[in-house]
Amino acid sequence: MFTQPIPTIRRDGDAVVILDQALLPHACELRRLTTLEEVATAIHSMQVRGAPLIGATAAYGVAIALATDASDARLDHALTTLAATRPTAVNLHWALGQMRERLLPLAATERPAAAWREAEAIHRDDAEMCAAIGRHGYAILERLAAGLDRPLRVMTHCNAGWLATCGAGTALAPVYEAQARGLAIEVWVSETRPRNQGLLTAWELREAGVPLRLIADNAAGILLARGEVDVVITGADRVAANGDAANKVGTYLKALAAREHGVPFYIAAPFSTVDFGCADGGAIPIEDRGPAEVCTVLGLDSDGAVKSLRLAPESTAAANPAFDVTPARCITGIITERGVCAPGRLRDLYPDAAR
Amino acid sequence: MFTQPIPTIRRDGDAVVILDQALLPHACELRRLTTLEEVATAIHSMQVRGAPLIGATAAYGVAIALATDASDARLDHALTTLAATRPTAVNLHWALGQMRERLLPLAATERPAAAWREAEAIHRDDAEMCAAIGRHGYAILERLAAGLDRPLRVMTHCNAGWLATCGAGTALAPVYEAQARGLAIEVWVSETRPRNQGLLTAWELREAGVPLRLIADNAAGILLARGEVDVVITGADRVAANGDAANKVGTYLKALAAREHGVPFYIAAPFSTVDFGCADGGAIPIEDRGPAEVCTVLGLDSDGAVKSLRLAPESTAAANPAFDVTPARCITGIITERGVCAPGRLRDLYPDAAR
Repeated sequence: MFTQPIPTIRRDGDAVVILDQALLPHACELRRLTTLEEVATAIHSMQVRGAPLIGATAAYGVAIALATDASDARLDHALTTLAATRPTAVNLHWALGQMRERLLPLAATERPAAAWREAEAIHRDDAEMCAAIGRHGYAILERLAAGLDRPLRVMTHCNAGWLATCGAGTALAPVYEAQARGLAIEVWVSETRPRNQGLLTAWELREAGVPLRLIADNAAGILLARGEVDVVITGADRVAANGDAANKVGTYLKALAAREHGVPFYIAAPFSTVDFGCADGGAIPIEDRGPAEVCTVLGLDSDGAVKSLRLAPESTAAANPAFDVTPARCITGIITERGVCAPGRLRDLYPDAAR
Repeated sequence: MFTQPIPTIRRDGDAVVILDQALLPHACELRRLTTLEEVATAIHSMQVRGAPLIGATAAYGVAIALATDASDARLDHALTTLAATRPTAVNLHWALGQMRERLLPLAATERPAAAWREAEAIHRDDAEMCAAIGRHGYAILERLAAGLDRPLRVMTHCNAGWLATCGAGTALAPVYEAQARGLAIEVWVSETRPRNQGLLTAWELREAGVPLRLIADNAAGILLARGEVDVVITGADRVAANGDAANKVGTYLKALAAREHGVPFYIAAPFSTVDFGCADGGAIPIEDRGPAEVCTVLGLDSDGAVKSLRLAPESTAAANPAFDVTPARCITGIITERGVCAPGRLRDLYPDAAR
């Protein structure tokens, strides 16, 4: 199984140590989180990010919150606090639901140890989920690469690789599987404004030795039109029952262009991302993260120090929807840990899932 | 007629003074260009930018080049040097063609004065062209605004306003006309990575008192899907005979999303942008501006100084196509100084144009 070059999160006694992704790729720092508030801040401020990793982090947050007080009221407070950090990320809510379900029936004295056990199980399951997505997605890449006399060109958006999970990633898991199996591959990495998560993707691919080319988000259309992309794979923050998928803003534009040019477009997402309670994408809440992200950018100055630059005056009016919804009609298939299905056939893979 | 708050270019004796757009909106500086080489550098490095303004600047560059030597060889050298600065911009080549046609038949002694006269005529014609595009485009906006109880929402891409021309602009000319006539309007301004020309658009709209909201390029899809955009208008760098239009990279993605959601998409472009010699968009050369633009960004640091930040390591492989082609099938109409036409009907407006 894929080993993360630097663990994105790991338990350290009664705390967790995270790889702080807010300064990546410009600075690589670990951060020890010891209180509920620190965990909530880490999720909200995107020190941890990526739907699956957020879920595991929130689960650890519950364990940390119960250390000195594991009453019903405290458990409720922890769940509410953590649920409020990122409204769109459905597996945040899924992980918190799991914690609630396991812990609520227990006596307060049993809860702290059980919470750590459950959080570690969510962590481990996530790594296994990534590996399974990698295997199923690899079969698609292998088929697309058949007969090519050049590397297969995969386009992705945002960061849905090992940095976003407890394992190999979701959208990038098939890429790492291809790398492990010796299939020649090259990744188009989209900058992903306004927060530039594409730079995280470039960083993590480089760490893993996968060839990549960085592009402005705007370049996706012409590359797809020119036939320079063989397949698009992105992650998802929430998938509705009908297969509509919410993911980082800009995903939808790539999906439209892929469909226009007959390039397959896949969503790679675990079961915890599927929300059968959402009939379609219209029911998915879309977070607006405010103007500051659009008006500023983080990078390295000429002395190598991490600096924030102002791109537009602070008073600039801006809109900043953090996600968009790619309708099922633009999605070729959804790659899950149970296999690949057409977007409308998620029920076939998960017949046991609650509505 | 619209008066530019700061002239984008003006003659000053045997030189020209330009508003240096390379540091805008972070710093507002004028620059005096006195040699052919300075003019070529100003165009190549985008101190002047915007297809119509590039054309006028190149024309002045020829006049400057001929000051001390107006031989055939010198004229040839000037035309060749200036033509090489930006391969995609067709009205750069159109303006140089005009200069060549007027100057070549003249004796060398007559050329310097004639070159200034001709450059000033191109300058003046451009301002008049903008005004005409503004009037024709305004009729579209007025029709779309009929019955609305809120401002009309126009989305644009890149900068095709007064900064890009010698007058009111192309894509933004109808907006300024609406402003002048009291039609309530609001502009969605797309950041336009990698060079952030959207910040120029935000700056110039603000100078003119037009309400705007800045967005990441990625947000266009969800805003169009949500019905928050009434019309998209962009400029063009070259329009092929069949109506396919090359414009700043990212335009095509907006056009695809506009079509998907039934939102009209217009190109505003003068005759000098139409290249009847290009049968379709496939024949338009697309400039690749190299990785540096994708990997760096310009902004203000906390002390208010203009700084460049590195977003990705300099060694990062990147692709940077500066333009893309929006096919005629995605274009509702082309707004020209002679009126508005369907993209396939440019010939009707310009029956006299050479093939």
